[in-house]
Amino acid sequence: MLFSKLFGKTLKEKPTDTEVSSHALMERAGLISQVVSGVYSYLPMAWNSLLRIESIIREEMNTIGSQELHLPVLQPAELWDSTGRKDLFGQNLFTLEDRRNRTLVLAPTHEEVLTSLVAANVQSYKDLPFILYQIQTKFRDEERPRGGLLRCREFHMKDAYSFASNSDQLDSAYEDMIQAYNNIFDRCGLSTVMVEADSGAIGGKDSHEFIALSNIGEDSIAICTSCKYGANVERAEFVKPVNSGNSSNATPEEVHTPGITDINALSSFLNVSKSDLLKSMFYLADGKLIVVVLEGDYEVNEIKLRNTLNIKDLAIASDSLIRSAGFIPGFASPVGDHKDVTVVVDDSVIENKNYVVGANKVDYHLKNVQYGRDFKKTTVSIEIGSDLALVKDGDLCLHCNSKLKIEKGIEIGHVFKLGTAYSEKLNAYFVGADGVRQPIIMGCYGIGVGRILSASIEQNHDPNGIIFPKLIAPYDVSLLGLNVEQEDVKNEADSLYELLTSSGANVLYDDRIESPGVKFNDADLIGLPIRLVVSARNIDQGVIEVKKRSDSDAVKISKDEVVKYVTDLL
Amino acid sequence: MLFSKLFGKTLKEKPTDTEVSSHALMERAGLISQVVSGVYSYLPMAWNSLLRIESIIREEMNTIGSQELHLPVLQPAELWDSTGRKDLFGQNLFTLEDRRNRTLVLAPTHEEVLTSLVAANVQSYKDLPFILYQIQTKFRDEERPRGGLLRCREFHMKDAYSFASNSDQLDSAYEDMIQAYNNIFDRCGLSTVMVEADSGAIGGKDSHEFIALSNIGEDSIAICTSCKYGANVERAEFVKPVNSGNSSNATPEEVHTPGITDINALSSFLNVSKSDLLKSMFYLADGKLIVVVLEGDYEVNEIKLRNTLNIKDLAIASDSLIRSAGFIPGFASPVGDHKDVTVVVDDSVIENKNYVVGANKVDYHLKNVQYGRDFKKTTVSIEIGSDLALVKDGDLCLHCNSKLKIEKGIEIGHVFKLGTAYSEKLNAYFVGADGVRQPIIMGCYGIGVGRILSASIEQNHDPNGIIFPKLIAPYDVSLLGLNVEQEDVKNEADSLYELLTSSGANVLYDDRIESPGVKFNDADLIGLPIRLVVSARNIDQGVIEVKKRSDSDAVKISKDEVVKYVTDLL
Repeated sequence: MLFSKLFGKTLKEKPTDTEVSSHALMERAGLISQVVSGVYSYLPMAWNSLLRIESIIREEMNTIGSQELHLPVLQPAELWDSTGRKDLFGQNLFTLEDRRNRTLVLAPTHEEVLTSLVAANVQSYKDLPFILYQIQTKFRDEERPRGGLLRCREFHMKDAYSFASNSDQLDSAYEDMIQAYNNIFDRCGLSTVMVEADSGAIGGKDSHEFIALSNIGEDSIAICTSCKYGANVERAEFVKPVNSGNSSNATPEEVHTPGITDINALSSFLNVSKSDLLKSMFYLADGKLIVVVLEGDYEVNEIKLRNTLNIKDLAIASDSLIRSAGFIPGFASPVGDHKDVTVVVDDSVIENKNYVVGANKVDYHLKNVQYGRDFKKTTVSIEIGSDLALVKDGDLCLHCNSKLKIEKGIEIGHVFKLGTAYSEKLNAYFVGADGVRQPIIMGCYGIGVGRILSASIEQNHDPNGIIFPKLIAPYDVSLLGLNVEQEDVKNEADSLYELLTSSGANVLYDDRIESPGVKFNDADLIGLPIRLVVSARNIDQGVIEVKKRSDSDAVKISKDEVVKYVTDLL
Repeated sequence: MLFSKLFGKTLKEKPTDTEVSSHALMERAGLISQVVSGVYSYLPMAWNSLLRIESIIREEMNTIGSQELHLPVLQPAELWDSTGRKDLFGQNLFTLEDRRNRTLVLAPTHEEVLTSLVAANVQSYKDLPFILYQIQTKFRDEERPRGGLLRCREFHMKDAYSFASNSDQLDSAYEDMIQAYNNIFDRCGLSTVMVEADSGAIGGKDSHEFIALSNIGEDSIAICTSCKYGANVERAEFVKPVNSGNSSNATPEEVHTPGITDINALSSFLNVSKSDLLKSMFYLADGKLIVVVLEGDYEVNEIKLRNTLNIKDLAIASDSLIRSAGFIPGFASPVGDHKDVTVVVDDSVIENKNYVVGANKVDYHLKNVQYGRDFKKTTVSIEIGSDLALVKDGDLCLHCNSKLKIEKGIEIGHVFKLGTAYSEKLNAYFVGADGVRQPIIMGCYGIGVGRILSASIEQNHDPNGIIFPKLIAPYDVSLLGLNVEQEDVKNEADSLYELLTSSGANVLYDDRIESPGVKFNDADLIGLPIRLVVSARNIDQGVIEVKKRSDSDAVKISKDEVVKYVTDLL
């Protein structure tokens, strides 16, 4: 490709409204251009990269025997009502009315339509198992689109779905998919970790996320510094130590704690560790007041709370609501007879004794309080042992007792074991070898194609620009002709361009009448893996200057050897 | 691919609601499945074909130096208001409101968004010319979706756009594109003709359509039986003979024509040819009554009428409206002083004399009427010589005087010279070598990807099923193992499958426990280019039976030579 013909201009300055480096670099390098909030045009270089990413995904999906198909964007709203997901997605779902006033959905994911199609094409266990996938445009009306391709309203996704007659078949598809995902991300030059995940609005039980580590990521994950355990903080479990110091059965006693309503202040005032204090956190859960009780050094994990109690709407309760239920904010206590309030207890609290809790009286706390004797959980849906606490840096791994580290990252892939929730609702059954009709067991598996590009730029850049991973770069080589208005430079560069191209390299040849400085800057900004420089001085020496974008220094390679040298690097 | 693992069941019966053969065959063969009116899922075989078609398109587009990019589906409605096309597309445009109550359009085509992007990336004539293209999903809320992929509401299109600084550059892009289109359709096994076309809602002047000839097509075209002239009937021009017989300047005279209100009856009654009679056709054009006058053997070409007078809404006028304007339906006449009515005259009428027209009096006509003397056109926007008549079979070619033939076909491609209409409205200007700022000259070029598949099946099938053209078949070879429950058949078929696959052929191996009859029927229905049969009898003879889907007879090829034989065929 001749740079003079390439569509898309580079920008000298960082565009406004780009808070994330990859986003700024992609706009500066002429890769993407916003059309409306969270909706982008992909210019030729970005599209080249995305096609390469798609073809890596396709190869790995085909290798594990999955079949590609293509499902539509437009879908009848009734289909989404039948699984209850129209309400669940709520405002995130784009809907429209067609000319006959029928409501259609722009699909954000394809479980509904594919499960219906599978229902019509599977009768017997002999038709199973199989995996279907597509690479397709999805739509979600995100409240806060962000970071270029990191969170868009229109985006490209690879979504795959497995259909099985038993859980072994599901497990095997799940394992194959994990292997394929690891291969895909490796080939795309991404450093990722696989962690246990909450399965969110898609439903199902087992699920893992693939996280590209990055400070600008919005996902927080806990990773063990020793064993392989890792989980999204929404889901992470950890060791909650039993306090061994004080196991007497002393009776509750009021302590005067004037003006002390805060855990840290209370810990200092009483000179006890925060884990000897209990927090009472009030929430409005689907319209009802609940109080979550947990040790003072933990925070409530609202995802765990939602999942445990199957809560749809969850919000922190206001002080006035807390007061109207008979509690004193800052000194509230689960001890006592509180009607109309559900008490929810974290498992950290069950085994220990002699906690300090609020006395439900201004300026007083109670000490020597214990669960079971002085207060109880009052919800039947929470089991003893339910974990409602948020992991924090330094908590201990449940598997090996080493320290957990909290990292930030970008979710670029997600795998779920869906089970039979969708097949039951959408009537996708098969007849087993035993003659019994039963629901198909499903898994679903997603990769954000645009996110791979953004995340790999996020992980691979320097202040001068992008450092494209080799297999997903828009072109392999930047060939700079310095001062191509000089005939010998132009001839040399032209002939090198021909040679490289015919040897199979994809070359972006900067043939523009521009200063060397502009060309070097653009080459660094666009960040193709290899840069070649043809200049008058190099011609005199019979060499071409070769530099990997990821290296700081160039090497001089003799003219005759440069094509082989470059093709070997690629 | 093993048939036993392939997703998608074949059907024995023609599905209901499929009027078009290709549609019925595609549903029967398990290629497509409707989700909602005019919206389809593409099952793996159809998607394989479509990917092959896309890759042919990509190769030909890249060969002429066009650059692929990808533009979004969601677009702000204001952009479509700025070119006036939101109104023009009307109910065909899908629109929605996002969560912030902003109206978005689902793009049916991409002139607006691309021209805006180009405006930001072109400054000088040195940045021109270039061609950009994409292969992407489009949306049109068609009133009557039809024929499977022939007319859908969600469909795949290749759309390309050329940007030029002068008309030579535009002409050159246009010629390159025509060559690429011919190559694409040839490689896809389609028989097409290129004809002159009306440019419809897209705007612009020169335009050509590529028509796949087919009786089920909705486009009618006129093709010269001798020279290369061809045009959509909406646009076709033809020779209108000057009647040489009667050039006297006789004066108008009433003729009693009791109850005769019809051209055929009048021609018989007066024993004159229909071309000696004039028709007066009344229309309501943008709310105003007009009367079109043309010779009795022609029909009004409403597209030409719309274009000539720039009419947006056109409908046949009701009898009551005609009466209220002072005309007698059946005996209406342009002769006389008709205020509030625009008289529009076809060029066939200008040169001839002594026509019979209505007398505007029940049961009477006038003879010896001539244009200019007895009536005139009363619209300033119609030129003398404007052609408003519809071509019919047997009319004569304007270029070589041979007969024109009317054929039916499916429009699968369309090329337009857009000119500067969009660049002016969307501010896409460049500075020329002369320093003058001027609008970029555009062309646009579309291919219906799904239509290629449907049209090629429409042109290539027999009563038993599809006859896939070689380069777009989902697989190259149907390998049938007859009675694979016999071990020697299974071993032989398995090993042939391995050999063919490793030699690069894409094989669909029917390894199912099904009767030979079922397998032969499915192979004919799916219609892959080559069918191989492994049976116990063939094994005894040391041969494999090979049949091209397009041939009626099979040949027996020795086992050792069959792989080479098949790969040579491919």
